[in-house]
Amino acid sequence: MTVRLVDWADEEGARFGKSLFGSAACSGNLDLNEARSLQDQDGIRLPEALKAVGIDFERVKDSGRELKQAAAYLELHIEQGPVLLDRDLALGTVLGTFGVERHAITFHGQAAHSGSTPMNRRQDAFLAAAKMGLEIYRIAERSDGGVGTIGNCTTKPGIMTSVVEECRITLDQRHLDTPALARMLQEAKDASERFAREGNVRVSWKRVLQVAPRRFNDALIALGDEAIRESGGTVHRLPSGPLHDAAEVAAAGVPTGMMFVQSLQGISHNKIENTKEEHLVLGVTAFDKLVEKTMAWIQSTP
Amino acid sequence: MTVRLVDWADEEGARFGKSLFGSAACSGNLDLNEARSLQDQDGIRLPEALKAVGIDFERVKDSGRELKQAAAYLELHIEQGPVLLDRDLALGTVLGTFGVERHAITFHGQAAHSGSTPMNRRQDAFLAAAKMGLEIYRIAERSDGGVGTIGNCTTKPGIMTSVVEECRITLDQRHLDTPALARMLQEAKDASERFAREGNVRVSWKRVLQVAPRRFNDALIALGDEAIRESGGTVHRLPSGPLHDAAEVAAAGVPTGMMFVQSLQGISHNKIENTKEEHLVLGVTAFDKLVEKTMAWIQSTP
Repeated sequence: MTVRLVDWADEEGARFGKSLFGSAACSGNLDLNEARSLQDQDGIRLPEALKAVGIDFERVKDSGRELKQAAAYLELHIEQGPVLLDRDLALGTVLGTFGVERHAITFHGQAAHSGSTPMNRRQDAFLAAAKMGLEIYRIAERSDGGVGTIGNCTTKPGIMTSVVEECRITLDQRHLDTPALARMLQEAKDASERFAREGNVRVSWKRVLQVAPRRFNDALIALGDEAIRESGGTVHRLPSGPLHDAAEVAAAGVPTGMMFVQSLQGISHNKIENTKEEHLVLGVTAFDKLVEKTMAWIQSTP
Repeated sequence: MTVRLVDWADEEGARFGKSLFGSAACSGNLDLNEARSLQDQDGIRLPEALKAVGIDFERVKDSGRELKQAAAYLELHIEQGPVLLDRDLALGTVLGTFGVERHAITFHGQAAHSGSTPMNRRQDAFLAAAKMGLEIYRIAERSDGGVGTIGNCTTKPGIMTSVVEECRITLDQRHLDTPALARMLQEAKDASERFAREGNVRVSWKRVLQVAPRRFNDALIALGDEAIRESGGTVHRLPSGPLHDAAEVAAAGVPTGMMFVQSLQGISHNKIENTKEEHLVLGVTAFDKLVEKTMAWIQSTP
């Protein structure tokens, strides 16, 4: 049996805006036409950038044959959230990665003078967007484990002395369960239409991203729990809000398991991101046990 | 008795962002130091632009002596709002101009990953701003005649995958009554602090503009009603939400009256701004009567 380490290319998508580039190429999910036209801030295209380091863009999916014989895939990662921190736990077993629905929602109202327009005559696009700001919390709470975020809001004409004519917000909803995620999205759509009607404005939606939830392998989840317990940790299972390369490998049909290590302050992608050294040590120890257990599991599986 | 027509310079402030420039110079309220440093989009300073048309910026306030002998000031204007339209009236008598409180409100939260941060762990600056979006309507409704507008909203980091760390909104509140306006502002401040506490974020306020309400002259308001009635119109009194040069003249102590003509669709500062020709004719007729009545009033006043 062979153990391989993989260093996936560009998980973050920081340069070309395409996260999971390497693992999506390997899983076969990468859209070559879309990726071919991506440019960085200096106008350099992704294929050119790859060529400069000796890689042929047109053949990136060839890497998929490396997965053909894979019996299992394991990944260790920082949590990037506060769940383990809040429970004072070093490690957690990951159930899978959230599915994602990402949309731009635009409310279309009517610009009007801020001084001369009575409140009951306004078609205020910001008011409808503001109602969404509260509603996404109610939707997430009802969803049993999902999250929803409005990360961006822009207003037009965007001047102090005018009612907002056009307000665009971005919505990012996530859940581990496919029907629950679909329900969250439908509830957000219904609410946006209700708020539009109430405020005499129109609403339009545009999908930006849709990612299916990826559940990890049940046997490997159980082995992850064992490895944590035998390393002296307390077992806790949690979904992953962020996407990971593991999700692409799972999508390619390889049994996948993943382990999280606590993030200090629950913060990631930020200069204050950090993890205690003792938790790093515990993470490596437990992950090593998980690898051993997984190899034994593969050998015992017919 | 002399009747003079005045063509005020730059009421809108479109080029230098300083509205009521001419009338504020004349009333003496213009802040010379502030105005001296104003630049247009091409970097040309206001004093240079005036010099190019033969006017000495340093002497603009000399125009104030023209008001010294003024016995009354009258102004005719389109309403720029939907109040007369909704009541199917051609004309209205203006009670005065709203006082204005204009502020930038910034909520300071914490950026966090949209996928990994549970809803109850967020310090979401947009959520607090969204609550303000609804609250300003409640405050205006309680104020008996005031209005409040959030015209601009910006978010940082402003990306789809992060909880909003910083959200800045602009607030414009107006009322004809000084204590009522102060109450509206205090209620907005109290609400912003309550929402900040609820959402574990901070809030900061910065005043951008404060204008006192300007009530017009009671005798001239009564004469305005008479003039409208005698022109065949139905009398209606209303405050002015927008500022007007009349407010500066009233502030300088000159008895001031003002008349509004209906705006089609209640819209102004927009390419669809328009007024029916029959309403323009009626406006000129009634205004002419108001001028005659005002001259008679001046002569009869000891």
